[in-house]
Amino acid sequence: MRFVTYRNNQDAARLGMVEDGLVIDVARFGAAAGVTLPDSMLGFIDLGPTAIEFLKDLYINRNAAWLIGTSMPLGNVTLLAPIPRPRKNIFGIGLNYTDHIAESAKSLDTSAELPKQPVIFSKPPTAVISGSDPIRHNKAMTQQLDWETELAVVIGKTARNVSKDDALDYVFGYTIINDISARDCRRSGQWIVSKGQDSFAPMGPAIVTTDDIPDPHDLMITTRVNGVEKQHCSTSFMLFKVHDLIADISAVMTLEPGDIIATGTPAGVGAGRTPQEFMWPGDVLESEIHGIGTLRNPIVAV
Amino acid sequence: MRFVTYRNNQDAARLGMVEDGLVIDVARFGAAAGVTLPDSMLGFIDLGPTAIEFLKDLYINRNAAWLIGTSMPLGNVTLLAPIPRPRKNIFGIGLNYTDHIAESAKSLDTSAELPKQPVIFSKPPTAVISGSDPIRHNKAMTQQLDWETELAVVIGKTARNVSKDDALDYVFGYTIINDISARDCRRSGQWIVSKGQDSFAPMGPAIVTTDDIPDPHDLMITTRVNGVEKQHCSTSFMLFKVHDLIADISAVMTLEPGDIIATGTPAGVGAGRTPQEFMWPGDVLESEIHGIGTLRNPIVAV
Repeated sequence: MRFVTYRNNQDAARLGMVEDGLVIDVARFGAAAGVTLPDSMLGFIDLGPTAIEFLKDLYINRNAAWLIGTSMPLGNVTLLAPIPRPRKNIFGIGLNYTDHIAESAKSLDTSAELPKQPVIFSKPPTAVISGSDPIRHNKAMTQQLDWETELAVVIGKTARNVSKDDALDYVFGYTIINDISARDCRRSGQWIVSKGQDSFAPMGPAIVTTDDIPDPHDLMITTRVNGVEKQHCSTSFMLFKVHDLIADISAVMTLEPGDIIATGTPAGVGAGRTPQEFMWPGDVLESEIHGIGTLRNPIVAV
Repeated sequence: MRFVTYRNNQDAARLGMVEDGLVIDVARFGAAAGVTLPDSMLGFIDLGPTAIEFLKDLYINRNAAWLIGTSMPLGNVTLLAPIPRPRKNIFGIGLNYTDHIAESAKSLDTSAELPKQPVIFSKPPTAVISGSDPIRHNKAMTQQLDWETELAVVIGKTARNVSKDDALDYVFGYTIINDISARDCRRSGQWIVSKGQDSFAPMGPAIVTTDDIPDPHDLMITTRVNGVEKQHCSTSFMLFKVHDLIADISAVMTLEPGDIIATGTPAGVGAGRTPQEFMWPGDVLESEIHGIGTLRNPIVAV
């Protein structure tokens, strides 16, 4: 299934599912069917994995009247980040595609050796914006604003010491995050200032659940800046796969429903190009993953 | 004032203020006085800075009857972390005391040069425990479990681009965090795995508000392991002061009410000693800041 967080006119942010070109308000559709369902993405994730199957069945066996007043054309709503306010930091994974490790070692301060364990960092929840919001370019802070389109994993249930074999059972679904990075804001090797600034985590446009993405390692990632392709790579080239990451992180930190892991970016970032390229006010960044959708964020001066 | 989050018997966690050896339940005291007040620390912080003054006045001008059934001796309750579940990552500051920078450069992989800007990292909210909970020692993960007692700043109101002169106005109060660090879990220079594991952020015992700590740079930090002093240093030796840190972070990331900044540790960590010393199951770690209190956490094998 495909879930979004949407706003319609002056409504607060609400949970929707997308079917047949419609956004169906989950809580209102449930109410029409006589079932209490949550009105937020995190509320729905908290119900656990069976809720997806339940809702899918409810939709398949729907009474047509349940859609009247509870659904609207996708084009009529504004999509927000699917989880507009995560409950904690987003976990980011650095250096997780071999070709990106090589370009990073050439142009940044990282090692050319393949990491033996996932390189984990974090982005605060205040970095999250939607797939159409502006990305802030503060020229007093950076002249090296760069892109990193990534597959993001949304955790569906509490995970502690999960085995690799079981790890994918803990996934609710997948979305896109662009791990925006101000390369010249790294500090003593720590990345949170370069990657954690307000607006540096465009997310969306939807969370696609695991029933529709059975294999997260067969998705094509594409980045375009002003329409020109910059990154184009399959998630099959991830060094640490989604199950490796969940097993690894859950061995030391409890992963919770709604947690987000951005799984790293392939080659083609601006810092790795010859000559280097960065984003400036007026540019438009497109972040696409086949089967999930496209984010389209303008860069604006602040 | 001195605020705690406490539990009494089977009660859920609740907000208390400590006066004259009593824990006074803020919401129940308010109800007795005919005023609606929140029952959680974050709820109280969200009211903004005037709430502290209001509550102090209410207590000074109290009717003795308002304490009956709303207060209990401090020794009768269990203290939890003052903010048991932060709304985001805790911001940690690395290398913020000159003598610790020197010992760290000698024994770890950091530079001996003074950082030109604060070195910021993060700990997830799942790391938080109280000042009496066990710290997990997972021998499959670490043989280098170390201590770092730190003054932690609790933000009181939303801060964006705050000047150094105004920065202390954004502080709600101060508490203690021990930034527990598994030195052998650093990865490619990123610290979140070494510092972000479950139980690696003992916090408490109270938040002391700024009316009682007008100068955060005149507090004595002490660490003891099994009763033996390991760290003993004044916060006056901080390289980047509390106002510097708030100004710096708020220039790139919005700070929000309830956010926590752990301001770095002085010299005397285990990794910096000759020979090196680390913590093992059975050890007891005491983290003290004069005027705030003492945490006393046992190390336990998991």
